[in-house]
Amino acid sequence: MKERVVSGMRPTGRLHIGHFHGVLENWIRIQDQMECFFFVADWHSLTTEYADTAAIRDNIREMVLDWVAFGLDPEKTVVFRQSLVPHHAELNLILSMITPVSWLERNPTFKEMLDNIQQRDLSTFGFLGYPVLMAADIILYKATRVPVGQDQLPHLEITREIARRFNHLYGQVFPEPAALLTETPKLLGLDGRKMSKSYNNSIYLSDTAEETEKKIKSMMTDPARMRRSDAGDPEVCVAFNLHRIYVPQEQQDEIVPACRNASIGCVECKKILAKYLNERLAPFRAKRVELTQKSDFVDNLLHNGSKRASVISDAVMAEARAALKL
Amino acid sequence: MKERVVSGMRPTGRLHIGHFHGVLENWIRIQDQMECFFFVADWHSLTTEYADTAAIRDNIREMVLDWVAFGLDPEKTVVFRQSLVPHHAELNLILSMITPVSWLERNPTFKEMLDNIQQRDLSTFGFLGYPVLMAADIILYKATRVPVGQDQLPHLEITREIARRFNHLYGQVFPEPAALLTETPKLLGLDGRKMSKSYNNSIYLSDTAEETEKKIKSMMTDPARMRRSDAGDPEVCVAFNLHRIYVPQEQQDEIVPACRNASIGCVECKKILAKYLNERLAPFRAKRVELTQKSDFVDNLLHNGSKRASVISDAVMAEARAALKL
Repeated sequence: MKERVVSGMRPTGRLHIGHFHGVLENWIRIQDQMECFFFVADWHSLTTEYADTAAIRDNIREMVLDWVAFGLDPEKTVVFRQSLVPHHAELNLILSMITPVSWLERNPTFKEMLDNIQQRDLSTFGFLGYPVLMAADIILYKATRVPVGQDQLPHLEITREIARRFNHLYGQVFPEPAALLTETPKLLGLDGRKMSKSYNNSIYLSDTAEETEKKIKSMMTDPARMRRSDAGDPEVCVAFNLHRIYVPQEQQDEIVPACRNASIGCVECKKILAKYLNERLAPFRAKRVELTQKSDFVDNLLHNGSKRASVISDAVMAEARAALKL
Repeated sequence: MKERVVSGMRPTGRLHIGHFHGVLENWIRIQDQMECFFFVADWHSLTTEYADTAAIRDNIREMVLDWVAFGLDPEKTVVFRQSLVPHHAELNLILSMITPVSWLERNPTFKEMLDNIQQRDLSTFGFLGYPVLMAADIILYKATRVPVGQDQLPHLEITREIARRFNHLYGQVFPEPAALLTETPKLLGLDGRKMSKSYNNSIYLSDTAEETEKKIKSMMTDPARMRRSDAGDPEVCVAFNLHRIYVPQEQQDEIVPACRNASIGCVECKKILAKYLNERLAPFRAKRVELTQKSDFVDNLLHNGSKRASVISDAVMAEARAALKL
């Protein structure tokens, strides 16, 4: 039996290279090995973005264009939109009835987000219930595996506990999904902070080669290297965190000593990075431009995918309702 | 424009005469004046009954048989089952995103129930969110009126606040439903406590005339009237709380002095009550027996009603999704 995987992304708009190496590349890798359901978590985005939903539609479109252009194959995997499969809401409601509030309050991500995001009012019922909706998303397809980073393990543990509680109360319906631990390299942005849309320090998958080169030109390097003649240290160079991903190893091995003895300058070194980065992304970017020209491409893709997802979710919900005697 | 009314009852099984005079009679009265949606709140019943759902199906059947036998007209009004209209769950999820947890925690009914029901664990997320689901149930049909007792006004106020918040964030979609204040006479049960299924002190609508007479025979009267020759006081007589409903006024006017001077005994007095009560309920009870013999009567009725409800809820959800830009 193939493992079945469910994973979602909130529609935050165009993805940057941090998303690509953090999540999307991993999805693309596992789509060949497992039965995958990847979805646009648009209802989830309301947990934090309920006050401003104007951009959701565009954000969905841009994100899904990135997904497909960069390698997600909607023939192999089911790519769908959460809000087009109302069973997510139905199972969420049912699971809410058996989930103790204390499980949600002790969720470390909940506390952390409340602390971190202070410009918005997140003390809503839906925000507190985020892990319940996440549990519904996952077990609705009887997923056996969920790709998560180390930091999301507590969330997955709540999913497993909720599944277990349902099975205990009403009889065995849902497998307890196991973690598919994924390493997510923390990519630094142009300014040396974590690459993030909200910091305005990102290189987007959809940027042109020229935009990319310009951004890399402005990127921080080793802050101690003030003049061309100063020796630099690749270990603390912000730009070099991208060299490690995009520049071939032998060329990195030349750059490191050259930086340390100031025989290569940052301008030249960044040109090398820009060249390799652009080369690597070029075919995907070309495909993205092509997809962008097909009108309704994303809408059609998500509608078809959501129909395929519904075939499974419909059967699972029927089983869940029967177990519940509803 | 006709007022539109939405109201639900949890499927607790056979209704007793307290339910009839408290809620059902009121529904039957307003079905001629307003456009009514009456529903079986089966998802709501999970807020407190999640641990034991074995009886839900039977309870639904018995309750709906009572509704229709005693006068609810499924031609005039839309009679449906909540869980057959998944839009309730979808709107519930959306409203959960905009409802502050503090609104739910300050809900007095919530605190009261937590205090009163101690044999079950009610500290679940769904129990806390009861008023959100209730708000969804009501505004999903753009109800303008909700029949409530004085004690339920705080719940309705949360519904109005949630509707207002949605309109404020996303544009005017939902009317704020007003209360249709209903007086609910508190009927005493056989033992003098409030009539309630859980006290095992109820006269059911579906009881036979014989069962009813036997129950009335065992009913408490004036506890101070120990012997036949003692004078009684109808004011404190438990049985007399039913005389007031069922026995014609002129006959009550004869009984009151006769009790006070002990010229009538409790046995005889209760026979009078049983006679009138049974007479009043006889035609409904006969209809109930008749309906019970039609197999699938309730299932068909609820399926048809849920289809009719979905026509409205479908249109309203489309409007809500558009406002949300989903």
